[in-house]
Amino acid sequence: MTKTYNFSAGPSSLPQEVLRQAQMELLDFKGSGMSVMEISHRGSWYKDLQAETIELIRQLLQLKLSQQPIFMGGGASLQFTLVPLNLAQGRKCYYLNSGSFAKQAMLAAQKLAKQFSVTAEELATTETIGYVSLPKFDSTTVDPTAAYVHFTSNNTVEGTAWPTLPKVTSVPLVADCSSNIMSVNYPYHDLALFYAGAQKNLGIAGVTLVVIDRSLIDVVSPESDVPGVMLDYRTQIEKDSVYNTPPVFAVYMLNLMAKWVYAQGGVLAMEQQCQAKSGVLYDYLDASTLYFNNVEKSDRSINNVTFTTGNPDLDQQFVKSAAVEGLVSLGGHRSVGGMRASLYNAFPMDGVRALIDFMENFRKDHS
Amino acid sequence: MTKTYNFSAGPSSLPQEVLRQAQMELLDFKGSGMSVMEISHRGSWYKDLQAETIELIRQLLQLKLSQQPIFMGGGASLQFTLVPLNLAQGRKCYYLNSGSFAKQAMLAAQKLAKQFSVTAEELATTETIGYVSLPKFDSTTVDPTAAYVHFTSNNTVEGTAWPTLPKVTSVPLVADCSSNIMSVNYPYHDLALFYAGAQKNLGIAGVTLVVIDRSLIDVVSPESDVPGVMLDYRTQIEKDSVYNTPPVFAVYMLNLMAKWVYAQGGVLAMEQQCQAKSGVLYDYLDASTLYFNNVEKSDRSINNVTFTTGNPDLDQQFVKSAAVEGLVSLGGHRSVGGMRASLYNAFPMDGVRALIDFMENFRKDHS
Repeated sequence: MTKTYNFSAGPSSLPQEVLRQAQMELLDFKGSGMSVMEISHRGSWYKDLQAETIELIRQLLQLKLSQQPIFMGGGASLQFTLVPLNLAQGRKCYYLNSGSFAKQAMLAAQKLAKQFSVTAEELATTETIGYVSLPKFDSTTVDPTAAYVHFTSNNTVEGTAWPTLPKVTSVPLVADCSSNIMSVNYPYHDLALFYAGAQKNLGIAGVTLVVIDRSLIDVVSPESDVPGVMLDYRTQIEKDSVYNTPPVFAVYMLNLMAKWVYAQGGVLAMEQQCQAKSGVLYDYLDASTLYFNNVEKSDRSINNVTFTTGNPDLDQQFVKSAAVEGLVSLGGHRSVGGMRASLYNAFPMDGVRALIDFMENFRKDHS
Repeated sequence: MTKTYNFSAGPSSLPQEVLRQAQMELLDFKGSGMSVMEISHRGSWYKDLQAETIELIRQLLQLKLSQQPIFMGGGASLQFTLVPLNLAQGRKCYYLNSGSFAKQAMLAAQKLAKQFSVTAEELATTETIGYVSLPKFDSTTVDPTAAYVHFTSNNTVEGTAWPTLPKVTSVPLVADCSSNIMSVNYPYHDLALFYAGAQKNLGIAGVTLVVIDRSLIDVVSPESDVPGVMLDYRTQIEKDSVYNTPPVFAVYMLNLMAKWVYAQGGVLAMEQQCQAKSGVLYDYLDASTLYFNNVEKSDRSINNVTFTTGNPDLDQQFVKSAAVEGLVSLGGHRSVGGMRASLYNAFPMDGVRALIDFMENFRKDHS
C-alpha cells in the first residue's frame, strides 16, 4: 500500500502517536477494565479526564481564570445560532464577513431578527472580490452598545486567516477558531468567546470546544430568554459540560491531542511548524508556471493552502491523479473548486514534500 | 485485575467483539491508509459507511420507506427542544409524563410557549406516586388537531418501560427511545418520529439517531419558522446528515453495533436476551428479604432494573462495596438514589450472575 497523506479540511490527519495510544488503551482505560467509550460521564474516570483536558486547554491557550472551556455537540455550525441566541437578543451585533463560513455565521444571526430581535450587521466584507483578502474596517464605527463583533479566524474554504486579532476594543470580540485554533498563537485571553469544532486541530468530529468569559454571560444573559436548556450556554457552564451525556470519546481524543501539542512545545511551536509547512508550499506556488494561489499574501492561511491551475478540468484531473498516488482529499471546497491542501498541526512536513513532488510531475506531464 | 462489569446507565458496556474490531482497524480503515477518525465526511469512505449504517437500521427496526434516519449531535436532551420547535409551533402537543426524562421533554416544549406558541399539555402522569407505574390515559381525549403525543419508551431513572406502544391513533406518535431502542421489538414503523442517544444500545455518546417520517415534516414544517438551520430537521433530511461535519467515529461505532445486533439475531433476539437477563434479577429481587424493586410488575423495564434496601446508608455501602468487586456504576440516578443495574444489549448474563452472587454475599454480611 502507498503511504496515504490526508489533506482533508476536516476530519483530518491525527498524529500516529496519538492514534497508537488510543489503539493501545482502547479496551482498558487506565486500568479501569473498561474502554474509555464505556465509562460513565458521572464517574471519576470521566471527571478526571475532563478536568485534565480543561487544564491542558487553559495552559496551551493561556486563558484567563474567567474564561471557561465547555464541550458541546453539534459542530461549529450550531454555534452560529447559539452565539447570537445567547448574547444578542434585543441587541445589535457585528460580523466580519471574510469567507463562506463567516457569512453563514452572520446569516444564522440574521435569522434571529424576527423572533429574538437580534440585529446582525455586516461590519465589513470582501465577498464581492471572492474573499481573496481580509476585509478592512473602521473600528470607530462600531456601536459601543453592541453585543459583540464576530470574526472567523481562519477561512477554511478560501485559505485566508487573520494574522492578528481584529482590533476591536469597544465591544467583546467573538471568534470562530475552528480551523486554526492551537495552530496560531493568538492572545486567546483577549477573546470574550471563541469556539472550534475539534475535527481539524483538536482531535475528532463530534465535540466543539467553546470558551466563554463568564463576565460576558453574567452581564448579558439575564435579559435573554434562550428557548431550550441545551441551547443555553449557562446550562453547560453551571453543569460543567455534564448537564447531559457529553461526547466522551471525542473529549478523550481532544485530551490526547492537547497532550501531543504540549509535548511538541505548545501552540507557538505548532505555529512555527505550520508556518514552515505552508511556507514551502506557498514558495513553490509563487514560483510555479502552472499553479497559483490568488490570496493576498499578507492574509494567507498557514492551515489551508488553496491553489488552482485556472482550468477546472485540469484541476479535477489533478485531484483524481493525486488520490491514486495516496495524496487524498485535495479537492477545494465544493463551492469554489480548485485544490486545497489542509495542513493542520498533525499533518507532517513529509506530506508537503510528497505533494510538491507530485505537483511537479503533474506539471511536467501537462505542459 | 478483577473482571469489570459495567452497570452504567450510559455510556455503557460495549461487546468485546465490537471493541476488538474497532481496535484492530483503528489505524487503517478498510485499507484506506487512514483511521476512520481521519476520513473526510465528504468522501466515499464515509458516505459508504453512513449508507450501510442507515440500511442496517432500516432493516433491524423494520422501517417504512418514508421513515428517514438522520444523525445529530447534542444528545436526546437537545431533541426535547427540537421536536416541538420543528413540529408544534402554534399548535398543541401532548406528553405522557412517565418519568424524569419524560418530564424534561415536556418542560422543554413548554419553554417554547411564549416565543413559538407551543401548547404542551400533560396527557397523563404518575409523578405523584413516584413514577412507579406507567400513566393510564384516555386516547379519546386527545385533540385530533394536535401535533403529536410524546412518550418515553423506557424510563431510565425509574426502571419502567412501555411493554407496547401507547395506543394513540388520532395524532402522530413521537418517542424518546434512548434507553431501549433495539432492545424491545416495538413496531417502530408506527412511530412518526423517534430518537435515541447512542450511548446505551447503539454505541457511544456523541451521536443521536433521529428517525423521521417524511410525511410528518412535509405536512408540518412549512408553517414553522425554525430559528437556525442546525435546529431544523429539514436541513439534515435534505442534506442526508452531512450539512456539516457529522460525528464520524460515533457513526462508525453505531455501524459496528448494528452489525453486532444483526449477527446476534436482530432486535427480537436482543429482546429475548434482555428479558432473560432482567428476569433472573427480578426473580431474585422478588424473593429477597433485603432488596426490593418498587415498580409495578407489568411496567418493569428489561433494561434498567432499579432496587433498594430501603436504607440509604446501606444502599451507599452496597454501591461502594460492589465497585471494589468490579461491579461498577450500580448507583441509582442521583435524583432517586438506591441502586440501578442497567442491562443493555451488550451487557452479558455472566454479569447479572456476578451481581446476584455479590448481592447474596452482601445480604448475608448485613442481616
